[in-house]
Formats: sequence, structure tokens, C-alpha cells
Amino acid sequence: MKKVGIIMGSKSDLPKLEKAVDILKRFEVPYEIHVFSAHRTPVEARDFSINARQNGFGVIIAAAGMAAHLAGAIAANTTIPVIGIPVNASSLGGMDALLSTVQMPSGIPVATVGIDGSSNAALLAIEILSLSDDTLADKLDKERKANSEKVLQANTEVAMV
Amino acid sequence: MKKVGIIMGSKSDLPKLEKAVDILKRFEVPYEIHVFSAHRTPVEARDFSINARQNGFGVIIAAAGMAAHLAGAIAANTTIPVIGIPVNASSLGGMDALLSTVQMPSGIPVATVGIDGSSNAALLAIEILSLSDDTLADKLDKERKANSEKVLQANTEVAMV
Amino acid sequence: MKKVGIIMGSKSDLPKLEKAVDILKRFEVPYEIHVFSAHRTPVEARDFSINARQNGFGVIIAAAGMAAHLAGAIAANTTIPVIGIPVNASSLGGMDALLSTVQMPSGIPVATVGIDGSSNAALLAIEILSLSDDTLADKLDKERKANSEKVLQANTEVAMV
Amino acid sequence: MKKVGIIMGSKSDLPKLEKAVDILKRFEVPYEIHVFSAHRTPVEARDFSINARQNGFGVIIAAAGMAAHLAGAIAANTTIPVIGIPVNASSLGGMDALLSTVQMPSGIPVATVGIDGSSNAALLAIEILSLSDDTLADKLDKERKANSEKVLQANTEVAMV
Amino acid sequence: MKKVGIIMGSKSDLPKLEKAVDILKRFEVPYEIHVFSAHRTPVEARDFSINARQNGFGVIIAAAGMAAHLAGAIAANTTIPVIGIPVNASSLGGMDALLSTVQMPSGIPVATVGIDGSSNAALLAIEILSLSDDTLADKLDKERKANSEKVLQANTEVAMV
Amino acid sequence: MKKVGIIMGSKSDLPKLEKAVDILKRFEVPYEIHVFSAHRTPVEARDFSINARQNGFGVIIAAAGMAAHLAGAIAANTTIPVIGIPVNASSLGGMDALLSTVQMPSGIPVATVGIDGSSNAALLAIEILSLSDDTLADKLDKERKANSEKVLQANTEVAMV
Amino acid sequence: MKKVGIIMGSKSDLPKLEKAVDILKRFEVPYEIHVFSAHRTPVEARDFSINARQNGFGVIIAAAGMAAHLAGAIAANTTIPVIGIPVNASSLGGMDALLSTVQMPSGIPVATVGIDGSSNAALLAIEILSLSDDTLADKLDKERKANSEKVLQANTEVAMV
Amino acid sequence: MKKVGIIMGSKSDLPKLEKAVDILKRFEVPYEIHVFSAHRTPVEARDFSINARQNGFGVIIAAAGMAAHLAGAIAANTTIPVIGIPVNASSLGGMDALLSTVQMPSGIPVATVGIDGSSNAALLAIEILSLSDDTLADKLDKERKANSEKVLQANTEVAMV
Repeated sequence: MKKVGIIMGSKSDLPKLEKAVDILKRFEVPYEIHVFSAHRTPVEARDFSINARQNGFGVIIAAAGMAAHLAGAIAANTTIPVIGIPVNASSLGGMDALLSTVQMPSGIPVATVGIDGSSNAALLAIEILSLSDDTLADKLDKERKANSEKVLQANTEVAMV
Repeated sequence: MKKVGIIMGSKSDLPKLEKAVDILKRFEVPYEIHVFSAHRTPVEARDFSINARQNGFGVIIAAAGMAAHLAGAIAANTTIPVIGIPVNASSLGGMDALLSTVQMPSGIPVATVGIDGSSNAALLAIEILSLSDDTLADKLDKERKANSEKVLQANTEVAMV
Repeated sequence: MKKVGIIMGSKSDLPKLEKAVDILKRFEVPYEIHVFSAHRTPVEARDFSINARQNGFGVIIAAAGMAAHLAGAIAANTTIPVIGIPVNASSLGGMDALLSTVQMPSGIPVATVGIDGSSNAALLAIEILSLSDDTLADKLDKERKANSEKVLQANTEVAMV
Repeated sequence: MKKVGIIMGSKSDLPKLEKAVDILKRFEVPYEIHVFSAHRTPVEARDFSINARQNGFGVIIAAAGMAAHLAGAIAANTTIPVIGIPVNASSLGGMDALLSTVQMPSGIPVATVGIDGSSNAALLAIEILSLSDDTLADKLDKERKANSEKVLQANTEVAMV
Repeated sequence: MKKVGIIMGSKSDLPKLEKAVDILKRFEVPYEIHVFSAHRTPVEARDFSINARQNGFGVIIAAAGMAAHLAGAIAANTTIPVIGIPVNASSLGGMDALLSTVQMPSGIPVATVGIDGSSNAALLAIEILSLSDDTLADKLDKERKANSEKVLQANTEVAMV
Repeated sequence: MKKVGIIMGSKSDLPKLEKAVDILKRFEVPYEIHVFSAHRTPVEARDFSINARQNGFGVIIAAAGMAAHLAGAIAANTTIPVIGIPVNASSLGGMDALLSTVQMPSGIPVATVGIDGSSNAALLAIEILSLSDDTLADKLDKERKANSEKVLQANTEVAMV
Repeated sequence: MKKVGIIMGSKSDLPKLEKAVDILKRFEVPYEIHVFSAHRTPVEARDFSINARQNGFGVIIAAAGMAAHLAGAIAANTTIPVIGIPVNASSLGGMDALLSTVQMPSGIPVATVGIDGSSNAALLAIEILSLSDDTLADKLDKERKANSEKVLQANTEVAMV
Repeated sequence: MKKVGIIMGSKSDLPKLEKAVDILKRFEVPYEIHVFSAHRTPVEARDFSINARQNGFGVIIAAAGMAAHLAGAIAANTTIPVIGIPVNASSLGGMDALLSTVQMPSGIPVATVGIDGSSNAALLAIEILSLSDDTLADKLDKERKANSEKVLQANTEVAMV
């Protein structure tokens, strides 16, 4: 199975990525975590991206805050899908990171999820990998059903209020 | 090869999607275009989404403006990747559509591209399909190189200024 | 008397809806509370909405945060009035939920109240029901008068400062 | 049948309200149009609102731009439902009118529709009146079906692209 | 000397107005504090405003949050200057109150100060009254000089860092 | 009678100030127009402000766009009331000028009107001067009545629609 | 004298940079214009930046729109000052480019000027070079004086209005 | 070596500037700290700026919040580079200070860094001084390398997760 690369711009973003890691573990999807900075280690970020496809990666998840260039910088050097997580890391509530991640110029797409949306980043990565992996597709269906069950259970509980 | 579904909330969005269609044609990726509204034809939108994977779709691109629920509504009914294009269709410059598309709750990811970003939506769809199609991967590389050439050519021209 | 349906996208929104429930109780308006998610339980949300009018509902209040599609998704399936409460549930102060709720496309109105405005949602529901219920109209008048009295009392107290 | 009051803050807003008038005419709902300003004719606005219920009004639609106080000022003086249309009338794209209309303090609800959303204001008014008028409920259903048909027709046309 | 009226929409805004009261006391400017709500006690707010000039008021300061109509509603009923303080009272950081206060339609001006800017509201009121009161003008000069001294003193202290 | 100073940061702002000039002329209030830049002619701006009170000015209206410092720079050098007009002069719709004008630090108030709100700036200046000029107070009352009449006339016309 | 590098992300940005070029010509500062894209020609952008200091550049001006990474990407590879011009190139009025340019993470500064602020970018570059070039410092003084003269001249003209 | 002037609008901003001071100390760049207010001590701010070049300053860093005029006011009186730090000092998350600092009119540039970005302000100042000081250029290179090392080290640590 292809691997998911999880890249963060700073080690301090790790807690915000834990949900993504947990989901990948639960779905038994292989992953690698890296700290690469678009600005402080541009060479390493670039080398990782250029070789990502041949190194067995199927998707890269990149999380960064403020003027969040990381996902775009990685996407510039690979043609496998890159998922960007805008991190809320300034006084602007993540609006800076959202616009810096999603408003990419034509030619270099970044699949952007919501601010601090690491769960959805992992699920989107799995959805992408599921196109050639029926087991993952089944697990995604089960996850959706489990989530539905939780809502239905909550609906039962709340009816008592 | 898996197909790409292109869904728009209103036929008036078609001109904004032409670039996506052109790119898919150029890459010889099969596609289907549909007009489904999350609010006016929720049943059709749902039926399309629920059956998308078994009907041979690999990715769905959904474009909508204002309180843009279309991509999320489709994503709620399938586990293949859904790409959302926020369309600038109100006096708020597309900020309403961007937030309505990208800020999805946990569990239902939408891969959001920039406002009116239909080219990138198509390229992202092709990147996803390229994971199991080396020909597409090669074409993407060539596209990137062609784009680089254009920038380098522009660099030569502009040096005369 | 027609019932008010109170729908929330997640059980965690319940505390934000308590004021609405208190007001409906005080006005002796029958109500039902449900947890339905536009994305996680779209079928249940749809079934509830489609049958709402014939099941005796006169108004539906729907509360959701982030890319808040719930009120719109319910409004798409009923022609009884739907009141949307944008819930502040992200780092954007509820602006995402406000725009996702209020900027509905033509044809499917959502009566939107302020961010986290559950009191006003309940009062608006009662105003709607009061059109065919003079007792409710009287109670609303009394509520207004009681609120005026509180302000006048505060005016007396503050004059001492 | 109860009447719908359509109030605008300035006669220059009339073109933005034409769609609302057209819809009310098509649904054969009686209406009255007035120009009242919360600031320039506060007495008239107040008198109209205070007497609205006993004068046979069931809903009031109020449209205003900029620091749009009109809907709130009317809602302060009646307990029939008041629908606010934020009008895009400044360089801020209607964000000023939206926040001035929707962020009402607790106790005085305004049912806010989207910026320049006069069609939805009229439809919401009709939905409210339909609670005690089955003919209107039927017409709303037909309107929805007609809108669905248009989308389905567009879907057929677009498939040729 | 003419009086300053200090009006707040809710008694809970009183702490935010304390600085204004302190400044007026220090400048020995007579003032009256009132709680009037544009929406809950519109009659009282109106009566106060209509009679303000003949009752000896020279300026009215009005503080309100959210869809802050208070200053505008008062300004609609008097031609003495009205100063609006947008109060930060929602999840939007006061942007709603700022736009609702400052973006007044042509004909009814509100002199708006910054969000929660009660000190400046009081100083602006005193500046207005100083036009016909040389003692106040002198006191304002002294206040400015005292503020300058504080900055100069801070400049001396900070040089040691 | 005290004069009104009208200051603009650039001669290109003159068309946006014409309404203010017209109103001052109509009210027969003496005025002076100047082009002073907070940044390009800080000395002249400062000299004008420091001497404004003794030179017979009662109010200064300052209009500027973008990072609009002009009103604040003038207010820093006088204790007569300064009215700031944020001018829409960039791609941000005047939000930059609004925040730069209204969010003044404690101690230096600027009476801010709406974006491009030159009519209200002039009327506010006249309201301030009316505190010691009953003729102006009468004229303001008449202006208000004339405006009311226009709205009432519009109300009559629109009833035919 | 050290050179100024003017880098744009796309040749279509050239018209927005003409003022910068004109100013550099007028000040007789040597410059080079390049089209480099942070995403389409990352290698060339990087090579240029890494060698900029030793190739005789003293300042680099980088202009880009949308998720504007160009200035940051260049700044990541050089320690000479980099000036970023956020270009208004989307439906968001340049707010996306502004935040993407200015909100740089700690360690990699970008000297950001206003949206589409190419004149100021050129002047800032000249200010930087003027630290070791008294002729440039003199020319800057003259430029300032000429600008002041223009404002004073406008002041004379406008007094006639 | 030329000095760096660090100016803050209020002594309360000092903690936000500590990182800048630490960096200048570490790089052994001489500096002076001052508290000058554009509005409360405009004369002192002006005198400092006018004489800055001849008093041996090479760069001025100015930090201010809200309607942050300080950097612009200083820049108006000197042609050495002025770096503006927008300080988050209101309920708007620093957006007011950012726009007030960066959106300078043509002719008076301010090199703006991110909100509360004092580290980057210091580094930018050093970059500017490094143009004529090879030792500083070397130290900047070492700082960059040290930062890269930290990221690479974090990359090693995080791989264990």
C-alpha cells in the first residue's frame, strides 16, 4: 500500500496532528511523519517532495500556520495529491493560514481542509488511497456508519431533554 | 480508467468550469457533467453520490457559490474523494462559498481549492487518478515542465524591459 | 398547537440551545429535540424534514457550526419555515457558520438569527406560531413588556452611579 | 388572508425588491409596499409596526443597507415575524448590512435572509403564512417541484457539453 | 454648562463605561446615565432624545453591542451630536457593533469612536463642549500635556532596558 | 461663527468631499478647504491643527484613505473636535481607512463617520456648532423635516407599485 | 552600487510593477527584472536567491498574488532584505496576498508594503541602499520635498473651491 | 556600525519587543529603545525621526497597535528604512494595526512584518545593516543554519512518533 506523508512546519504543530495519526493507525495505513519547513529547510522539503512518488508515497498531508507556504511548496515539487491543513497559529484565527493554503495559483493544486482539520485530512488521504484498495473503501464505509450510529444514539439521548 | 464527475449547483456556473473540462479533455480523462443542486434536487444529488464509486467514478468535483453546500452534501454520501470549488457568486467575493465549502465538520472531508479554482480542481482530480495510472503521472510531469518553460520564456522576455 | 422541532448537528451543541428550550417551555409551546447531521445522518435529517408538516411541526429550528449546512439541508426538504442558528464552533468566531447559514441560494430560504442566538430563534418560532394563536400573541406582548420593565428598572438603578 | 408588509428604507431599494413583489403576486398573497426609514421617519415606521398585527399583517419584510436598523426597529414594535433583507449598499459588499440586521440582541428576533435576498424573503413570508393556508402550502410544493424540474432540465442540457 | 447624556443598551455595559464617567467627573462636566434600549424601550429612548436639547444636554454618548442600533436610534431623534461606542459583545470582536454604529445612512450622523472606546467618547464630548467653555479647553490642554509627560517619563524609563 | 476646516490628504479626494461643501454652503457655515498630508506635509498639517482653535475653527473634518492617519494626526495637535471620513481608496473597500481612522488609542478621539460619508461629516460638524447657535439648530430641524417629507413622499409614490 | 532584483510570479504582473521600474530608473539604481514562480520554477527562484548577495544584489522586490509565496520563498534562501508586494489578483481584494506575504513565521522576514504598492517597494529599496550611498539619500530628500511641494500646490489650488 | 532605533507607542508594548532586543543583543548590533507616541508626543517622535540618519541610525523599528500610525509618522520624517510591527492590542486580533501600518500611501513606505512579529523586525533590520557589514551577513547565515538544524533535529525526533 502507498504511504501517507505527514509534514508539519514546526514540531509544535504535532499535537494538532495527533488525530490524523490516530486515524491512519486505526485504518492501518502506513505513514511517515516529518518536520520540514518551507522556509528553514527548503532543500529537505524539496527533496522529500520530488522523490515522494517513487518513494512509495500516495498522498502528502502538510500542516502549517500563519503565511502557510508548506503545502504549496511541497505541491510545487510533486504531482501526487497534497492535502493542506491551515493551522490556527496567530491572532487571526487561522484566516491567514487558510488563505495562504487554499488560494493557490493555477497549476499547483492543494487539497485544503478546514482550519486545524487534521481528522478530515487523514480521512481524505484514505479516501484517495481507497480508489485502488477495496479494504480501505470498506473501512471508510464502516467509519461512516459508526459515525451515523453515534449521531442516532445522541438523537435518542437528547429526546429525553 | 475511473471517471471524474463534475457537478455544478446551477447551469450558470458552467463557464467557470470550462477550464476544468478543457484540462480533463487534454489529459484524456473520462468525465461526466451534471447539474445537481444540494437544495433543489437533493434526491438526485444523493443518488448520484451514493452510487458514484460503483458507477466508476474516482473523483467528484463540485462547484457552488454563496452558502455552498453542494460539495459537502455530495461528500456526505460517498467515500471517494470530493473536490470543492467555491464559486464567487455574491457580493462577498466568494468568502461565503469558501467558508461553506472548506470548514467541514470532522468526518466528511472536502478537498477545497481556491475561489473559482476550476483548473486546479481538474489537476487535483488527475493527480488522484495518477496514483494508479502511470500515463497520467507522466502527463502531469509534462504539464509541469510546460508550465515551467512558459515562466522561463517569460523571464527571458521580461529581461528586456 | 403546531410543534417546534429543534435540530442540532451534534449533541455538543445542546448547551447552546438550552435558552431556546427554556423559552418554549415557558410559553407552553410543544417541541421535539433531535440530533441530526446534514452529513452524518442525511437520510434521517431528510425524512424528518419531508414529513415535518404532516407530523404537526410548524417551525424547525436548526443549529450548526462551521460549514453549517444543517438548516439549509432541512429547508431543502420542507416548506414550513426553518430558522437557522449559526453556532460559534471554530476559530473564526462563527463567521463561517453565519455565512453558511444565511447566504442561501434563491428558492430555499433560511430565517437566520444571530450567532449563538438561540433565544431569538425560539422567540421567532413563537412569533410565527402566534399568527394563528392569540394566546401566544398575548404572551409575546407580556414578554416584551417584562423586558421593557427590566430595562426601565435598570435605568432607575443606574441613575445612582 | 393575512397581508405581507414590504418596507424599504429608501425608494432606491425598490429595484432590489422587485423579485419579492413578483413572487407575492404569483402566489396571490396580498401585500403593501412602504418606504419608511428607521432614522428619517421613525414615527411612521413605529406606527406601522405597532398596528401591523391588528391591521391584518402576518409578516413584515424590511430591506435596508449600511448600518441597517430598519428590520430591528420594526421588530422592536411588533411581535409578528419580521424578515430582514440586508442590502448591498456600500463599499463593504453588504457585510455591514448583514451584521446590522442579523446580530440582534436577545429578545427582538429578525429573520434574516442573504444579502439582497429578496426572493427568499418573499418565499419565507409565504412559508410562514402557509402554516394556516393549505393552498399556499400546495403552491410552495409546486414551486419547489418547478425549480427541481429546471435543475433536472439543466442537467440534461449540460450532459451534452 | 450643558450636560452629557450617557446611554447604554444594557446595564451589563456599565463597566465598559466607567472610564467615561471617571473622565467626565474629573473634568467636572455634568452628566446623566441612562439605560435605554433601542429595541426594548424604544419609547423612552425616543422621548429622551427628542427632548435632549431643551433639557440641557449638549452631547449624548450611546454604547451598544452586536447589531448596535442605539446610537443611530437616538441620533434619529435629536440634532445635538451623538457619540457612538461600539461595544465588543459577541464572538465577532465588536466588528458587528462597529459597522452597525458607523455606517449610518446619509442625514443622521453618529460620531463613532473605537470599539469599547469609552475614554475617547468622554474626551470627544468634552472637546465639543469646550467650544463654548474656555475652562474645559484649558483642562483638555492640561490632560494632553499630562499624557505627553507620561510618555516622556516612560521613554526615560525604557532607555535603561 | 466658528469655521469648519475641511482637510483632505490628496486633491484627488475632492470629489468625495463635494457633498460636505454643498451642505456647509447651504447652512451658511464658513469653511476652509485644505490639502494637507499627514505624511507628505506633516509640518503644515501640524501647524494648521495647533492653531486651529485660535484661528477660529470649531471643527475639523479630515478625509483620507488606505492607512488613513490624517484625522488622527490632526486630532493629536488640537483639542477641538476632529471628524474623520474614511475614504474608500484601495482594493479593500475602505475597511483599511475605517480601522485606521476609528481605532484611535485612548486620549486622542476622532469622531468617525461611515466610509465616504462626507454628508454626515458636514452635518455632524453643524450639529456641534449648533450647540451655541440656535439658527443652525433650527436649520438642522428643517433639514430633518425635509428629509422626512421626502421619505413620506416616496412612501406615497411606492404604494402604487 | 548594489542592484535591485525585481521578481514577479507571472508576466501578467508586469504592469503593476511599472511604477517601481520608473522610480528605480529615475533614481539611477541598477535593477534586473525576472519572472520566477515559487511553484512553477522553484529551482530558478532558489538559485537566484541563494546567489543574490554575491551577484551584487542589495535588495529583492517580489510581487505575487493570491496565496503569495514568492517573497517568502525567496527570503528563505537569502539574507539580503526581501520586499514583498501583495498583488490584488483574486476576488478577495488582495487580502489573501497580503496575509500570505506579511504573516511570515519567525526567522524569515519579508518587508511587506501595501497591496499593489510597487512605488513604495521601490522607494523602500532605495532607502535601504541609501544607507551606504549619500547621493541616493539626497535624491530621496529631494523626492520628499517635491512631493511636499505638490501637496502644497494642491492646497493652494483647492482653497479656491 | 549604524544603530537600530526601537520605538514603541506605549511602554506596555515592551514585552512584545523583548525578542527583538534579544536578537539585536545577540548579533551585537547597537540599538536605542524609545517610547514615542505619534499622537501624544508627536514633537518628540518627529524630532527623533528627522535627526535619525545624522544621529547614526540605520533602521527604525516602530511597534504600535490599533489605528497604528507610529511607523508611518516616523517614516514621514526620515528616509532611512522604517520597519513597522503591527501589535495585537484590540478585540480585532491586530487586523486594525496591520492595515494601519501596511496600507501606506504612495511615497512613504513602511516595511511591515507580521502581527506581533518582533523577531522578524529585528532580523530584517540586521539584514539591512548586513549590506555593508560582512560580519553581520555571516552571523545571519549562521542563524539560518542553526534554525535549519533545529528543524532537522525536530524531524529526527518526530520520526519516532
